[in-house]
Amino acid sequence: MSSLITLTTDFGLDDSFVGVMKGVILSINPNARIVDICHNVSSQGIQEGAFVLASAYPYFPPDTIHLAVVDPGVGSGRRPIALATPKGLFVAPDNGLLTCVLADFGVRVEGAGGTVEGRGYRVEGRSLYPLPSTLYPDLKAVHLTELRFWLPKVSATFHGRDIFAPVAAHLSLGVPLGQLGEAIDSLEVSPLSQPNRVAAGMLLAHVVYVDRFGNLTTDARPEDLPPPPLAISIRDRIISGLSASYAEGGALLALINSGDRLEIALRNGSAARTLDAGPGEVVKIERIG
Amino acid sequence: MSSLITLTTDFGLDDSFVGVMKGVILSINPNARIVDICHNVSSQGIQEGAFVLASAYPYFPPDTIHLAVVDPGVGSGRRPIALATPKGLFVAPDNGLLTCVLADFGVRVEGAGGTVEGRGYRVEGRSLYPLPSTLYPDLKAVHLTELRFWLPKVSATFHGRDIFAPVAAHLSLGVPLGQLGEAIDSLEVSPLSQPNRVAAGMLLAHVVYVDRFGNLTTDARPEDLPPPPLAISIRDRIISGLSASYAEGGALLALINSGDRLEIALRNGSAARTLDAGPGEVVKIERIG
Amino acid sequence: MSSLITLTTDFGLDDSFVGVMKGVILSINPNARIVDICHNVSSQGIQEGAFVLASAYPYFPPDTIHLAVVDPGVGSGRRPIALATPKGLFVAPDNGLLTCVLADFGVRVEGAGGTVEGRGYRVEGRSLYPLPSTLYPDLKAVHLTELRFWLPKVSATFHGRDIFAPVAAHLSLGVPLGQLGEAIDSLEVSPLSQPNRVAAGMLLAHVVYVDRFGNLTTDARPEDLPPPPLAISIRDRIISGLSASYAEGGALLALINSGDRLEIALRNGSAARTLDAGPGEVVKIERIG
Repeated sequence: MSSLITLTTDFGLDDSFVGVMKGVILSINPNARIVDICHNVSSQGIQEGAFVLASAYPYFPPDTIHLAVVDPGVGSGRRPIALATPKGLFVAPDNGLLTCVLADFGVRVEGAGGTVEGRGYRVEGRSLYPLPSTLYPDLKAVHLTELRFWLPKVSATFHGRDIFAPVAAHLSLGVPLGQLGEAIDSLEVSPLSQPNRVAAGMLLAHVVYVDRFGNLTTDARPEDLPPPPLAISIRDRIISGLSASYAEGGALLALINSGDRLEIALRNGSAARTLDAGPGEVVKIERIG
Repeated sequence: MSSLITLTTDFGLDDSFVGVMKGVILSINPNARIVDICHNVSSQGIQEGAFVLASAYPYFPPDTIHLAVVDPGVGSGRRPIALATPKGLFVAPDNGLLTCVLADFGVRVEGAGGTVEGRGYRVEGRSLYPLPSTLYPDLKAVHLTELRFWLPKVSATFHGRDIFAPVAAHLSLGVPLGQLGEAIDSLEVSPLSQPNRVAAGMLLAHVVYVDRFGNLTTDARPEDLPPPPLAISIRDRIISGLSASYAEGGALLALINSGDRLEIALRNGSAARTLDAGPGEVVKIERIG
Repeated sequence: MSSLITLTTDFGLDDSFVGVMKGVILSINPNARIVDICHNVSSQGIQEGAFVLASAYPYFPPDTIHLAVVDPGVGSGRRPIALATPKGLFVAPDNGLLTCVLADFGVRVEGAGGTVEGRGYRVEGRSLYPLPSTLYPDLKAVHLTELRFWLPKVSATFHGRDIFAPVAAHLSLGVPLGQLGEAIDSLEVSPLSQPNRVAAGMLLAHVVYVDRFGNLTTDARPEDLPPPPLAISIRDRIISGLSASYAEGGALLALINSGDRLEIALRNGSAARTLDAGPGEVVKIERIG
């Protein structure tokens, strides 16, 4: 097992939460190498965290342990879990935070409608999603129930420190997944936003993420788009066709971004601020002529 | 000696200060492993830094070197120091930044009254606190005076780079504490906020820290509280009893947090913003019925 | 070659960009040690990034690989480059981001006039600067053209992930600079702000950087200053002479800072906010009496 552990949380960097988790990990496995993916997920933004985690884990070695904690239900009945996949091992609360990861492995977690949560797009409702081993032989999940891999004293408010960090550290030492708790065959998922094809030449996509530059990532992939020439509308603005890069095209532009999604961007500026647009905003992509 | 060094500063992450300190450490000890506890302590918030450091160091291996720099007196006469304890080695300016650490080892550093400083609670005045070896045989402090463990050129404004980082790096290489300077038997402390028991069934606590979620940590420990049933008042709001977790209880709730202190929180929101409350705010805990 | 790689970017810490770059590096060289210098360079602030990078790299071991990405021209024709110097190896877009590093090795990159860019000072115009090997035998630059050291798929918007991170990782594994692409003998530079000596006893300096504390770094070095006694004017305020440290002198003070530049600071406060001064602001230093 790898000694590489990544962290994705909504703990921010203003307090000692993240440092404390690292101390716990290094106390258990002094040779662990810890890499931060992001700690500025919006407070309790489960779907935003799911998106951020999914954008990063594929770039790490496949035996990496990804520890993710966005956990509004800490101290309640929600289960702490670990999920093994062919491209990484995940330790997280069972609250939908692994939805995008599951989608990468073919689990269909689509939905429609929704409300805004943090900087991410939330579709109402979560549901327990069955993961039968016959359908997904590569995915194995356990409910973390073995107290001996936790800190001796577990608080009601900081399971990142008391459960998730020590479990990740023990995994990095080679403890097999199966020893950490009971195998389970269903996980919570939050249905993911999907673009709607309303006609042969028209797609309605939705903004699902706003990055630090104010670029607007949508839920549309290249293969979802109608054939060119395209007119792309957001708020009261119309963009003509796709640009190849930020440096080309007009001030406001659309392109396929590094995450392979349609993105609306403002050259040398913030599309989010200029358009006053955020998660949930509809983007209409239409074939013209 | 451990090669693990933690950093706690008010340098923020907008400049290169923290990166520079890491470069200095790695130039002296290429095998040092460096972990950030927090760099967003409010500018020159000594007591806030003291609180943050104390919330984290117990979770690291006991031979870890904790480097802390919140240093408004840099370049003046305040002493650079190192402090050895059974649970960690500390390198810091002698300005009260180690107050909470000292309190953990039985040094009584109480006070009353005070003013707000950054996100932490400040009690007016600092004083040189005697640490006779007869009383505290486990605590050993030195005034860092041995220039050969500093950078060759010392600036007037960045001792984190020029003194503290190189000293921590040399400690991590195994240089004994006693070689770094002269033993001293007193340190500066900033008296810590304490709750007041004004009657058998009534305690006045104070907010001492606001975290990123807007949760309000007070200075009251579980053993300070009157026996239940309790009414907990802050500003014009009354909370009925303690909740077991954020997920339980009403919107505004009180619980014992992961640092073993009474905390006022708002479920899925910021208690600090909703109550317009910050460090120094009084919280009344009263036995009812 | 060192396994130490530093990162300086304008990617911020709100997204997964930085974590993704680290994943790419560790996938190629699992033993790489990665240190953040700064990720909060103002969006597309090339000169600010150049300043931040130059303030940090000299404190790292000389075989460190410094990866810097502030890249408004990503996806356009700007070249990805690597630059070897006696004090570090740099991987960056060829857009002026290495200007301050080049200046450290004697390349004269002065300019006059300018406009504000982010928190740094920008002089209009960039130009291709010749670096003939006869003049600068220690500096060797290559245009990164060897695709086999990039990720297999290169996006139009995230060369930090697709080109710069993998190239830095391969360098850290010992791949020689010359294998990464074609040798080039000129690089883009952005002329640097310089103080103007308008008379024997008078210097006009300019604010070039504002740090997290609101301290104002100027472009004047100690050797540029007229002989004392000095009067230092900024906005409508006059400061009398240089202070030895923040703790000495008046509320508003001037000193030589840790980067060996004249700095205007406010004791226990923000000079930037109090003076409403930022990059480009003129500071007059005059010999009096």
